[in-house]
Amino acid sequence: MRRTGTNLPKVGQYNRAVVLDQIQLADGISRVEIAESTGLTPQTVSGIVRRLITEGIVREDGAAASSGGKPRTRLRVNADAGLAVGVHFDPFQLSCVVTDLLGRPLVKLQQPVVPGASPAEITATIAGLVEDMLATTGVARDRVLGLGLATPGPIDQALGALVGPPQLMGWTRVALKDMLVEATGLPVTLDNDATAAAIGECWAGAGRGVADFAYFFFGAGVGGGLILDNQVYRGGSMNAAEFGHQSVQPDGPECYCGNHGCLESLISPNALVAASGLGTYAALRQGVVDGDPMAVKVVEVAAAHLATAVVNVANILDIDLVVLGGHGLRHLETRFRDATARALATRPLARSIRTVRVEVSPLGADAAMVGAAALVLHTTYSPQVSDLLSL
Amino acid sequence: MRRTGTNLPKVGQYNRAVVLDQIQLADGISRVEIAESTGLTPQTVSGIVRRLITEGIVREDGAAASSGGKPRTRLRVNADAGLAVGVHFDPFQLSCVVTDLLGRPLVKLQQPVVPGASPAEITATIAGLVEDMLATTGVARDRVLGLGLATPGPIDQALGALVGPPQLMGWTRVALKDMLVEATGLPVTLDNDATAAAIGECWAGAGRGVADFAYFFFGAGVGGGLILDNQVYRGGSMNAAEFGHQSVQPDGPECYCGNHGCLESLISPNALVAASGLGTYAALRQGVVDGDPMAVKVVEVAAAHLATAVVNVANILDIDLVVLGGHGLRHLETRFRDATARALATRPLARSIRTVRVEVSPLGADAAMVGAAALVLHTTYSPQVSDLLSL
Repeated sequence: MRRTGTNLPKVGQYNRAVVLDQIQLADGISRVEIAESTGLTPQTVSGIVRRLITEGIVREDGAAASSGGKPRTRLRVNADAGLAVGVHFDPFQLSCVVTDLLGRPLVKLQQPVVPGASPAEITATIAGLVEDMLATTGVARDRVLGLGLATPGPIDQALGALVGPPQLMGWTRVALKDMLVEATGLPVTLDNDATAAAIGECWAGAGRGVADFAYFFFGAGVGGGLILDNQVYRGGSMNAAEFGHQSVQPDGPECYCGNHGCLESLISPNALVAASGLGTYAALRQGVVDGDPMAVKVVEVAAAHLATAVVNVANILDIDLVVLGGHGLRHLETRFRDATARALATRPLARSIRTVRVEVSPLGADAAMVGAAALVLHTTYSPQVSDLLSL
Repeated sequence: MRRTGTNLPKVGQYNRAVVLDQIQLADGISRVEIAESTGLTPQTVSGIVRRLITEGIVREDGAAASSGGKPRTRLRVNADAGLAVGVHFDPFQLSCVVTDLLGRPLVKLQQPVVPGASPAEITATIAGLVEDMLATTGVARDRVLGLGLATPGPIDQALGALVGPPQLMGWTRVALKDMLVEATGLPVTLDNDATAAAIGECWAGAGRGVADFAYFFFGAGVGGGLILDNQVYRGGSMNAAEFGHQSVQPDGPECYCGNHGCLESLISPNALVAASGLGTYAALRQGVVDGDPMAVKVVEVAAAHLATAVVNVANILDIDLVVLGGHGLRHLETRFRDATARALATRPLARSIRTVRVEVSPLGADAAMVGAAALVLHTTYSPQVSDLLSL
């Protein structure tokens, strides 16, 4: 273990990110308000803001009302000062987006994944999609801060590689990050889709300004992301928040992972389709919308399993908020949210001290794609204690 | 949410704690080695060490071998520079200890809790025990850094109060912290017994130098503590790591907490006694030692439930180590450890990337008591990122 000290240059970088973060969270904030909420001196805040304005990242935008004294100048993030590319590589579909600095999409493109596609083919396809997006928007490549790639976990961050997700046969420790750097010429940030989506929630979704939350991601499987003490918590090997592999039925069926009765094995789209006998996930979702009793019953049972897992996470991590998101959730949002809310109101041990809220992500099916772009913004701009303490 | 910046005085305090922490972890370390492992400059390290020596907290202790150049002076914590009092208030027993700066016990005292004792009576009893210990050791009160109190959770840290643990009828939001400050004249640090024990593991047990670990505490119930990124993780309302209220049998019996099939309700001493029909926990433990088939079977079933909960925690938090400890574990250590180790080798999703170890605490039945003393040391000396970032 290395427990590292810190120093003045790191502190300067960190405080700069803290100030930018405040401006991003509270659009139109003044220098005085930043000093009040960050504990930094007015002089420090002024110096940092001056540099952010010079760099074009922040702009002044008129005067705010003030309680006496001279009016305070509002500060806003200059949303066009930089752009991020986000790519979500799902086993069935590639989804790409270009966003501005506030995480707002400028253009989106999607393309099905050809079954059995090789890493080289996927890399070429992504590079092509990125070219198309930049051409469509007329964005110069030098304004793009980087490319964020969200893929199914587990991931080996040291290698920049996919370790071999179950739905991608033959993809074992593929160094997709380096392949994409070469193919696109952009800096690439790789993370698992659920962590990326959680970061997207921080940047542009339900998690804005929330110190501690758990994000449950519904895709082909069930993943998750954790924000603890305002920081992404990734775990020692970057594989934390595997909420889908909580055992919620220990005497249940064996999961591909080796565990028994995993949440994912009970409530993934494939599991729900099998349980309902309705043939396809689309049919199941439509059944829920139409109030088909069999479809509703299958989804209610799934929601109860989810609620068990959510209460476990609340008891282990004592969070403020649970966010449910991802494309797999569509049409099931209300039932999953309501079952989870009922459980969070009645079952966590510390519920008399704090109520854990649950919200459905406002990003909808775009969560992982926007999250992938947010990886770039997060890496570039977010206050990261790990940087403050790195060697 | 407030995301705060940092400044030079906070950085100085933090770096001081980082240096002291290194000396505590690596007894006999040199200034050069501290600089290497912390990333601090040799000048910064020298300045901090000089002040720690002046204050009597650190001492020089001869020269270490050096690869050329002048010999390096070994640094050691001056274990007698300060003392800490630890008190574990269990529903059935009060246990007290005085430790030195390295967490080594100088004297211990125990006393049964009179059933139905009032908060005022408990306070007076603790104050009396502290007097007795200080008299026995001849320690002057001004050398005592403070008193750490470990009690069953949940705890309201803002009030310094017990919220009302199930085993202490009528103790609802008792401000025991202030009562003890008044009765003993010492600064008091309050925490739940499991968190205290986890901090004890960091200071003097299996968790020394481990960045991420989960501590499962076996007392009258099953609690836990979390060390994540080298910091105690307490959660937003200070009630994280309630591992005993993970649901490991969702269709199982209702727990007093409102959840179903909680780990604690299935493997607490009371639950095991009821399941075995052996009358007392002592009889059950003896049965396990003697190889009584009924006792062994009951404990093996409990160990399987524990393993489920441990694998869930590993999948959620991606930790290095699980520590099992607490007085309730005595004579069951091996079976609980072995079942957990087997599960950790075969069931976590990321097991091909990292193996999660499991260890039985070396502190034995003293874990919470030593942990209570460690609360004082931790508050006084440990590098805490929260302090670096506080307003």
